[in-house]
Amino acid sequence: MQPSRWIAAWLLLLQACPPGHSQQAASPRTDIRNCSADPPYLPPTATNTTARLAALRDTMRAHSAHAYIVPSTDAHMSEYIAERDSRLGWLTGFTGSAGTVVVTLDRAALWTDSRYWTQAERQLDCNWELQRTTWIKSIGQWILEWVPAGGNVSLDPFLFSIDTWNSYSQALQGSGRALVPIETNLVDQVWGDQRPPPASNEIYSLPAEFTGSSWQEKVTGIRQQMEEHTRSPTALLLSGLEETAWLFNLRGDDIPYNPVFYSYTLLTSTNISLFVDEGRLMAEARQSLRGACPGPLCVELHNYSQARAHLQRYAQGNVTVWLGTEYTTYGLYGVIPQEKLLEDSYSPVMLAKAVKNSKEQELLRAAHVRDAVAVIQYLLWLEQTVPQGQVDEFLGARHIDALRRAQQHNRGPSFESISASGLNAALAHYSPSNTTRRKLSVDEMYLADTGGQYLDGTTDITRTVHWGTPTPLQKEAYTRVLMGNIDLSRLVFPPNTAGRNVEAFARRALWDVGLNYGHGTGHGIGNFLSVHEWPVGFQSNNVPLAAGMFTSIEPGYYRDGEFGIRIEDVALVVEAQTKHPTGEEPFLTFEVVSLVPYDRNLIDVSLLSQEQIKYLNAYYETIRARVGPELQRQQLEEEYRWLQRNTATFPLASAAAAATVTATLGTLAMGSLLSVLLAGLQA
Amino acid sequence: MQPSRWIAAWLLLLQACPPGHSQQAASPRTDIRNCSADPPYLPPTATNTTARLAALRDTMRAHSAHAYIVPSTDAHMSEYIAERDSRLGWLTGFTGSAGTVVVTLDRAALWTDSRYWTQAERQLDCNWELQRTTWIKSIGQWILEWVPAGGNVSLDPFLFSIDTWNSYSQALQGSGRALVPIETNLVDQVWGDQRPPPASNEIYSLPAEFTGSSWQEKVTGIRQQMEEHTRSPTALLLSGLEETAWLFNLRGDDIPYNPVFYSYTLLTSTNISLFVDEGRLMAEARQSLRGACPGPLCVELHNYSQARAHLQRYAQGNVTVWLGTEYTTYGLYGVIPQEKLLEDSYSPVMLAKAVKNSKEQELLRAAHVRDAVAVIQYLLWLEQTVPQGQVDEFLGARHIDALRRAQQHNRGPSFESISASGLNAALAHYSPSNTTRRKLSVDEMYLADTGGQYLDGTTDITRTVHWGTPTPLQKEAYTRVLMGNIDLSRLVFPPNTAGRNVEAFARRALWDVGLNYGHGTGHGIGNFLSVHEWPVGFQSNNVPLAAGMFTSIEPGYYRDGEFGIRIEDVALVVEAQTKHPTGEEPFLTFEVVSLVPYDRNLIDVSLLSQEQIKYLNAYYETIRARVGPELQRQQLEEEYRWLQRNTATFPLASAAAAATVTATLGTLAMGSLLSVLLAGLQA
Repeated sequence: MQPSRWIAAWLLLLQACPPGHSQQAASPRTDIRNCSADPPYLPPTATNTTARLAALRDTMRAHSAHAYIVPSTDAHMSEYIAERDSRLGWLTGFTGSAGTVVVTLDRAALWTDSRYWTQAERQLDCNWELQRTTWIKSIGQWILEWVPAGGNVSLDPFLFSIDTWNSYSQALQGSGRALVPIETNLVDQVWGDQRPPPASNEIYSLPAEFTGSSWQEKVTGIRQQMEEHTRSPTALLLSGLEETAWLFNLRGDDIPYNPVFYSYTLLTSTNISLFVDEGRLMAEARQSLRGACPGPLCVELHNYSQARAHLQRYAQGNVTVWLGTEYTTYGLYGVIPQEKLLEDSYSPVMLAKAVKNSKEQELLRAAHVRDAVAVIQYLLWLEQTVPQGQVDEFLGARHIDALRRAQQHNRGPSFESISASGLNAALAHYSPSNTTRRKLSVDEMYLADTGGQYLDGTTDITRTVHWGTPTPLQKEAYTRVLMGNIDLSRLVFPPNTAGRNVEAFARRALWDVGLNYGHGTGHGIGNFLSVHEWPVGFQSNNVPLAAGMFTSIEPGYYRDGEFGIRIEDVALVVEAQTKHPTGEEPFLTFEVVSLVPYDRNLIDVSLLSQEQIKYLNAYYETIRARVGPELQRQQLEEEYRWLQRNTATFPLASAAAAATVTATLGTLAMGSLLSVLLAGLQA
Repeated sequence: MQPSRWIAAWLLLLQACPPGHSQQAASPRTDIRNCSADPPYLPPTATNTTARLAALRDTMRAHSAHAYIVPSTDAHMSEYIAERDSRLGWLTGFTGSAGTVVVTLDRAALWTDSRYWTQAERQLDCNWELQRTTWIKSIGQWILEWVPAGGNVSLDPFLFSIDTWNSYSQALQGSGRALVPIETNLVDQVWGDQRPPPASNEIYSLPAEFTGSSWQEKVTGIRQQMEEHTRSPTALLLSGLEETAWLFNLRGDDIPYNPVFYSYTLLTSTNISLFVDEGRLMAEARQSLRGACPGPLCVELHNYSQARAHLQRYAQGNVTVWLGTEYTTYGLYGVIPQEKLLEDSYSPVMLAKAVKNSKEQELLRAAHVRDAVAVIQYLLWLEQTVPQGQVDEFLGARHIDALRRAQQHNRGPSFESISASGLNAALAHYSPSNTTRRKLSVDEMYLADTGGQYLDGTTDITRTVHWGTPTPLQKEAYTRVLMGNIDLSRLVFPPNTAGRNVEAFARRALWDVGLNYGHGTGHGIGNFLSVHEWPVGFQSNNVPLAAGMFTSIEPGYYRDGEFGIRIEDVALVVEAQTKHPTGEEPFLTFEVVSLVPYDRNLIDVSLLSQEQIKYLNAYYETIRARVGPELQRQQLEEEYRWLQRNTATFPLASAAAAATVTATLGTLAMGSLLSVLLAGLQA
């Protein structure tokens, strides 16, 4: 699946022209809304926000705030958020996953990226200006324009990362407008008892069979890193929900698609403080955490809301607190004196979690075998039912979700299924609903980007198919997307290589003919955790690739108003066997763990190189060997036959022969094909 | 040629492990010096620096400095520096091009990168610790260890860029040590009248036939960028020597290999202030600058030493000064109040200079034709004379320099020629001297990385050759380096692509078998200016590639103690013709303008793909078409025949046939090679 943060980063990349270079002019665009008409025209999907805005402005006046900034995240910088944290959505009516809002005493504006422009025009009423960019610089300029000098620009410090806070601070610096944190959230005040209640579901321990190591082993390992660090940090602060969940092998379901729970952790060399709603811990979880109390491996439980006060007290001592600046909020960061901070982009827990040990690798591999069964069932079902004209995008999404749910250890989808037919697939983030559901047809391409949460792993796979006769462009584009997927998957590269330095291999086959795609090439993935797991992947802010990391590889091609293609697999970074050993750390490559064949109907074999065909055949061998037995175990005989058909070897004869001929010519260093072949035939 | 700043950046890259990842342990290494012996052992190449250090420490005491930092650059952050600016070299005896020195009242240390460790051990006496890293963090830690709290750490603010100043400032922050700029250079005080005098050679105007546009057109273009900028800067400060030289079409020879002269420029919307030693301007140059005085296109001449005072006065007004932070020194930057600064990494002059207009492109192309003649003469001469055993590295370097000098418009080499045989070529920056000069032999590989300054362009080319029987590894490595050069040269990529995102294409063929190289892949180049021209290239701090930019493409492979390979060409970024037009800005690709064939003796054709062979043949066609006539014009008949031999078409028969077969099979989607071919033969 394509993560929104990645796309945002990518869009930023496209906009980031160097100074002095002309930027492409944005094409003129007409808003669906017509707010200058009398009366204004609004689509029926717009939300009336007049009363909410008036109430918010009253609260702003009471707090002397001349502007109030509302982001789309929660206090843990989570990618997915609970309904209760959807402050921006409630205030504006806009339900896109990424955006920023600024409300002044007489104006209100929403900034969001191009994925969401149409959606925003459909959902916002005329109280809102739509700003078609996401640059904080642009938000800052707007604030300078509409907030008079001497005004206060306020925000909830628990909803902004340190880096974002600094960007706003810089944008307002020297302008006479002050950036003022207000610890009470003003939207929550207005939202009042309409706001959904806090999560109350149980928090449970993951059984040992599904964990890579015990939480005590993990804590010991992290403490060792603290000891060995030159700055000798006395404590580690964990703000990311997946950090605490991973460290203690605990899971919850406070957030859709992500088995995490609201929490913070402060780990010192002698103490472990877990900030969580204690009443929600299941007995076995509580027992696991408290079994060794008192002692260095005893977890002290504190109320979730006490994290800041506790940290503030702790920070008064002779301490050094280690934290990850990418996702720690200014609200927590700000209580630690600068000289007591040890700042890295990601905490050592984030980095330890990113490198899966051999047991975790096996768990993820196993989850992908069962996941492949569900996807293969789905692809066969589509083949059989689409021609009858009864399947639409929404039914398709429901069906693949149901097929996954029937697999062992499944705990639901890992994100909202993307099931998009024809032109809908050109919208990279399209999800069907009861109201917008296109019928699947043998005359259109269909894209399904789906994934599952399993106790042993999280999956994410995209397949694009066509059941009829694709156009030459569709076939060429699909084949080139596949070539990109293969070229990156089979790449051999040195240790410490950053993903951003190699992701162009997934694009080259498209670039060759003037095509490209406008999103990132892949992201990390967890063991029954986030489907988008930082900091692994191919973007500029990802860490170098290392053996044991899992990442998606997902090139695509999108033709506005026509069709969309994406081919996504999850791959494990493994050591490579190279002809010349380096003598130092071994080179790396990928092992693809998603095990579903591609659509033969869309592959133009003549475009593939010998190496690509060989790779594809070897991959199909792996699929047969690993998924075949599981299909038989589940007595899915029709699916088994489908798998055999769809993993048939691609003819390599031409390529093999060419290799022979080339080798011969390489030796002869002369002669034409014909003479060589004739000689061969005559011999 | 490989620029040292690039290598430094690359080495940094290799060291830049993310926090929490283990860094590779440096292999234990024994210093050539033995300073603990009694008496200490020093190689005869070491310089006795005891008196110089004592004198410097006296001056430091007089200025209350407890530590003094000496860099290897000049006040313009030039890559090459004049002897007069070689303060580090004079103080330490170390003549490497990159390093940093810190002297305290009782210790002294030099930091330099791995290229120079052996050289430093040979040149430093026992007064000096050698620190084998270049991280400012490490320099800061050393200072904290040896300078007591309350101490002053001093430096000459005109020798540090803003960014470097900030790094030192950050390293000392909160430590109780103050970073104190001293405007008098303390080394210069001690150096006294032994220091070489200032440059006095004439500064001249480049004839109009060698310039892309008049200086007035350039000034007008830059002023327009100032007007159009949202911050409306009132002035532009130019500190880079090549900025002023390019803007006014002036040249000098204050610095070896670089036709520039000491200067600063302050360009406002109404005034042009050039800070230069006026007496050195030739009459025509003076006339060109002063022809339109008074007026907006009149250049006011000020003494070079007045730049800072002038800027300080100017900065008191209601102004905004635009500058490039990568190469402006803290000494100038510091006199401008923060709110009056408009900071970019590179000034608009740097960016305008990087994109050559069509006339500049033609000039550079023309220079490369004559340069190819000299290199071809050299390669032929080597072929004929090396077997007689009379050529060594030093004579070779002298000979290629002389051949270039005989070409029209030549103004000497563009850097010190690298002429390295056998194991010497494994040192990426080796230059032969009278004392170290290895004999060239038909049993060894030989690497020549050389370039010329011509009035119409600057060149830089590396060819590696073997006149005997290369080992299989040498041949494979050479071929894979060539494959990398070809793969990057023929890449088609979208506009706004950063070089760092595509440079791995130059490495993939090596990576495939576990090989790699430890330096950058290329750098910008000027029109009769710097051989390493910022900000173009493939490193992380380069700007995106744009049509009109020239860059070197120079993969390599180095085997310690055995051999070194590098294949370097200069290429122009041009628009690509793609099968599917994008409708927006066209895609880009490279046009190689270096025109010298590669060593056929080292190419294993069987490793090349069809596309690579086709590319190579097309490139050789271009060489014949462009260099052939020039060789004939110069009546170099033997060289002409050498060119014909060495650009003979590589057999593509195998590949072409394979393509046909693949296409056929693509249609048939079945059958073996034999049946298809038999059918073909029978038809």
